Amino acid sequence: MLRHRIATAILSLGILSLSTRAQAPDQLYTATHQQLEVTKVLLAQQAAWNKGDLEGYLSYYKNAPDTQAILEGPVRGLPNIRNAYRINYPNRDSMGELEQSEVDVRALGDNFALATGRYTLNRRRKPEVQGGFTEVFEKTSTGWLVIYSETS
Amino acid sequence: MLRHRIATAILSLGILSLSTRAQAPDQLYTATHQQLEVTKVLLAQQAAWNKGDLEGYLSYYKNAPDTQAILEGPVRGLPNIRNAYRINYPNRDSMGELEQSEVDVRALGDNFALATGRYTLNRRRKPEVQGGFTEVFEKTSTGWLVIYSETS
Repeated sequence: MLRHRIATAILSLGILSLSTRAQAPDQLYTATHQQLEVTKVLLAQQAAWNKGDLEGYLSYYKNAPDTQAILEGPVRGLPNIRNAYRINYPNRDSMGELEQSEVDVRALGDNFALATGRYTLNRRRKPEVQGGFTEVFEKTSTGWLVIYSETS
Repeated sequence: MLRHRIATAILSLGILSLSTRAQAPDQLYTATHQQLEVTKVLLAQQAAWNKGDLEGYLSYYKNAPDTQAILEGPVRGLPNIRNAYRINYPNRDSMGELEQSEVDVRALGDNFALATGRYTLNRRRKPEVQGGFTEVFEKTSTGWLVIYSETS
């Protein structure tokens, strides 16, 4: 299942590559190692979310005071982000099923990356939520971690 | 006026510094050269917008195929971004008065930066629009330029 989703995300990267290529026909873009590593984290976050594993989802956030998540307003620092998520998503049912699509990952130098895309959240007895997401990742000694996240 | 706005933005950075400092009392954060340079671009964009100078506003976007603005959906490349803005904001009145606040600028390595904050747009005969913004900047040979922008 996870492998299927990785394939889907790589396909999305591929589609973006084609559109970029159309504007710059001399160059062939393929997903870099960095793009794949960040995509794997996005997929791991999605998999954790869909198991109701909020701690697993949050384990991909960098534990630093300037890590920021825009929820109802800006929330800074992992302990505050964790609290806000626990209040908004107290149990498995409230988390529902998250699906990310149209994922675009681009490098911001060697140690940072920007991930954007669309998401859909389906929960029991609640209307479907759809929107866009923006995440900034930092390459740390323990892998690529989220330092900024926002949904619209 | 611009000087006043720079002072306001620097004040906002100062407020953020204090909140960050509260979580890490051993360190004193002050605005870096990079933060000030990016803040100046944000203020120059705001000033251009408020003069009805859409071209001036867009001149701070990097002219590259992978520059992306999330408007009603993702728009890639400066010519497409320019078209979308021209359709949405055909004249001075439609642009109205933009005010950015709670500006936070953080470095993503030496050559990239993340700017976030709140914005308010006031236009004649239309309800006020408020929301958050996210912009990613790249340091180029012609200065700091926007490579990603999103409002929510």
